[in-house]
Amino acid sequence: VRVALYFCPMEHTKKTVGVIGAGSFGSALAGLLAENQPVLLYSRKTEVAESINKTRIHNGFPIHPNITAISSPMEMAERCNLLFPVIASDGFRSVMKLYADHLKPWHILIHGTKGLDLGNLSQVDLQAARHLHRRQINTMSEVILQETSVVRVGCLSGPNLAREIQLGQPAATLIASRYSEVIETGIAALHSHRFSVFGSPEILGAELSGAFKNIIALASGILAGLGMGRNLQSMLITKGLSEIIHLADALGAGKTAFFGTAGIGDIVATATSTDSRNYSFGLRIGQGEKVPDIVNSLKEVAEGVRTLLIARRLIRQYKLHSPIVYIIHKVVFEEYPADKALSYLIDYPYTIDVDFV
Amino acid sequence: VRVALYFCPMEHTKKTVGVIGAGSFGSALAGLLAENQPVLLYSRKTEVAESINKTRIHNGFPIHPNITAISSPMEMAERCNLLFPVIASDGFRSVMKLYADHLKPWHILIHGTKGLDLGNLSQVDLQAARHLHRRQINTMSEVILQETSVVRVGCLSGPNLAREIQLGQPAATLIASRYSEVIETGIAALHSHRFSVFGSPEILGAELSGAFKNIIALASGILAGLGMGRNLQSMLITKGLSEIIHLADALGAGKTAFFGTAGIGDIVATATSTDSRNYSFGLRIGQGEKVPDIVNSLKEVAEGVRTLLIARRLIRQYKLHSPIVYIIHKVVFEEYPADKALSYLIDYPYTIDVDFV
Repeated sequence: VRVALYFCPMEHTKKTVGVIGAGSFGSALAGLLAENQPVLLYSRKTEVAESINKTRIHNGFPIHPNITAISSPMEMAERCNLLFPVIASDGFRSVMKLYADHLKPWHILIHGTKGLDLGNLSQVDLQAARHLHRRQINTMSEVILQETSVVRVGCLSGPNLAREIQLGQPAATLIASRYSEVIETGIAALHSHRFSVFGSPEILGAELSGAFKNIIALASGILAGLGMGRNLQSMLITKGLSEIIHLADALGAGKTAFFGTAGIGDIVATATSTDSRNYSFGLRIGQGEKVPDIVNSLKEVAEGVRTLLIARRLIRQYKLHSPIVYIIHKVVFEEYPADKALSYLIDYPYTIDVDFV
Repeated sequence: VRVALYFCPMEHTKKTVGVIGAGSFGSALAGLLAENQPVLLYSRKTEVAESINKTRIHNGFPIHPNITAISSPMEMAERCNLLFPVIASDGFRSVMKLYADHLKPWHILIHGTKGLDLGNLSQVDLQAARHLHRRQINTMSEVILQETSVVRVGCLSGPNLAREIQLGQPAATLIASRYSEVIETGIAALHSHRFSVFGSPEILGAELSGAFKNIIALASGILAGLGMGRNLQSMLITKGLSEIIHLADALGAGKTAFFGTAGIGDIVATATSTDSRNYSFGLRIGQGEKVPDIVNSLKEVAEGVRTLLIARRLIRQYKLHSPIVYIIHKVVFEEYPADKALSYLIDYPYTIDVDFV
C-alpha cells in the first residue's frame, strides 16, 4: 500500500464529489453518493445536464435533490477533490483528455468502468489484429495515469446492477487501489446502510475481473436464449471464472480479487440477471437476433462485446486454452450458430475440475 | 489416489447399475444412467416400486424404458456392482444397514446425498447440543465405510437441479473419490452428451461443499422472499462461499473443490433457482410463512435446514466468524425476524474482501 503526499491547497472540507458520466451506472452511483454529500454529475452534452436539472428525472429514475448536473470539466475539477469517472471504455481516454488540464496531483479518481482501452488502436485496427500484447491494452486506471497528473487512482467493481440500485435495493462493491487513502476516501463518500464498500490493494485484478466477466455474462445470456437452465449456466460461470483467472494471470494480475466482491460477486449478478446489458445482449443472440440489429437497438454499449474482441486476441497471443472466449467470439463476430457453440462447450474435453488453485 | 484390489467373482460385464432412493434426484440420476445401461431403481416401499413399473411415471416425470424399480436390497446388490445411494442424510445410515449384509468389497458406491450424518445423535439431541465436534459428524462416504464392507466409495456433487435434468437439459457433475477406479467407473456409467462428469480426489471437500452450500441456498431464498435482488444475492453467495470454506477447513477439508463444479457451480445453481428445495424453503420464510408450516407442506426434506443446525454447532465449537450461519440459524430456529437478519448481514463489519486465498 502506497502513500502519496499531495494535499489540496484549497479548503480541506471540500465535500462535494463528482461523477463523470451520466449513463445508467453513473446516475445510480450519483444517487448513492448523494445520500452522503452534494454531488456534481457530469454529462458532456449541455442539453442532457440541463434536462437533468430541470426535469429531475434521468433514464427513467428520479434524481436525488443533492445532485446537480453540469457539463464543464473545469468546474467539476475545481469543485471536487474526489471524482468517479464512469464512461464507456471506448470513450474513456477522450474524456480524460478533456479533464487533463484541470486535474491536479491532489485529485483522487476512482473509476467504475468495466472495460479495456486500446490506446490509439481503432475498432477497425482491433478487428484486423490477430494478436494483442499486454502493452497494447490499458486498464482505465492506467489511462488516468497516462493522460492526467493524478496519482491516487482506484477502481470500483462489484455486483452493481444499476437498475436494482436505482430501485433502492442494497448492494456492495469493492474499491481497489494501491493507496489506502483512496480506499478510505472512497468508502467515506460511498458507504451507507444500503451500500457496503470493501477495500483491496489488488487494482489490476479487480479491473480485469470487471472487464472480462462481461464475456461470461454475454455467454450466459446466450445459453438462456437457447432455453438452457441454471445447471448449465452455473457450469459456464464456474468454467468462465477459471478462464478469466488464467487470462488475468497472463496479463500479470493476481487471483485474489476474482474470489471476492469484484469477482464471483460481480460475475454471478451479471451472468444471471436480465438487468445486465451484457446478459441481455447474449439472450437476444441466443433467441436468434442478428448481432448488428442488437447493437443498433441499444442506447448504451454492452462492454462485453468489445472486451470479447480484445480477449480473443489476448488468448491467441498468450496461447491460452479458453474455449468460452474462443467460441463466443465466433458466435458474436463470425456468425457461428449459437446452438453449435453450445454443443462445442458441452463436449469440450475439460480434463480437470479446478486448475487454478 | 488409491488402488483397491477387489474383483467381483461374477461376470465382468455386469452392466446393470443401481440407484438407491427414488426421490426427485434419485429418479433424475436413474434417467441419466438409463441412457447408457439398464438401471435398477430401489425404493424401500414395495408399492412405490410397483407403481413405477406399472405407470412408468414417477414424481410427475416419465420413467426411462431401461429403468426397473425394485425394493429388495439383496437383489440390488447381487445384480449391480455399481450403486448410487441417493437418500436423505437422516435416513442414509439406516438404509446402509439394510444393505450391509449384501454389499461386498467389490462393490463401488457413489452417493449423491448433500447432507451430514450424526451417528446415534437424534434430532432432539442435536437441537439440545451447543457444540459439535468433527468426530461427531460423518459424511455419507464415511457412513458407507462404517456400515458396510465396501472400500471404493465416491460422491457425486454439482449443479444438478433435478427438475432441469428431468426436462432433458444439459448439466455437469463431479465424481470425487480417492480411488481413480471409482471415478472412471462412474464416468463410464454416467457421462453422456447432455451430462458431463468431472473427477477429483478431494472427496471430503466435495461432500462438505455439497452439504454446506444448502445453507447459502436457504439464505439466498430468504433474501429473494424479502424482495432483494441479484446484487445482494451475489454478495451473499460470495461471502457464503468464504464462510463454508473456513468451516470445511476447520473440519480438515481442502479448498480446491469449492472453486469447481461441486463448489461454485453447485452454489450458484441452488442459490438462484426456485427449482432448489432449499432456496424455495428460504423464499417462503422471507415471504413470511412459519417454518413448521413449510416443513409440514413439503414432500421431501430440505437438507439445508438440518445442515444449518449442524453448522451452527460446528462454528461454536471451532470459534469461527460465520455471520450467515449464525443469523440464518436464528431465523429458522429462533423465530428471529428475517428483515432484521437482513439488516444484520448488510451492516456486518466484514473487514476483508477475500480472506481465504
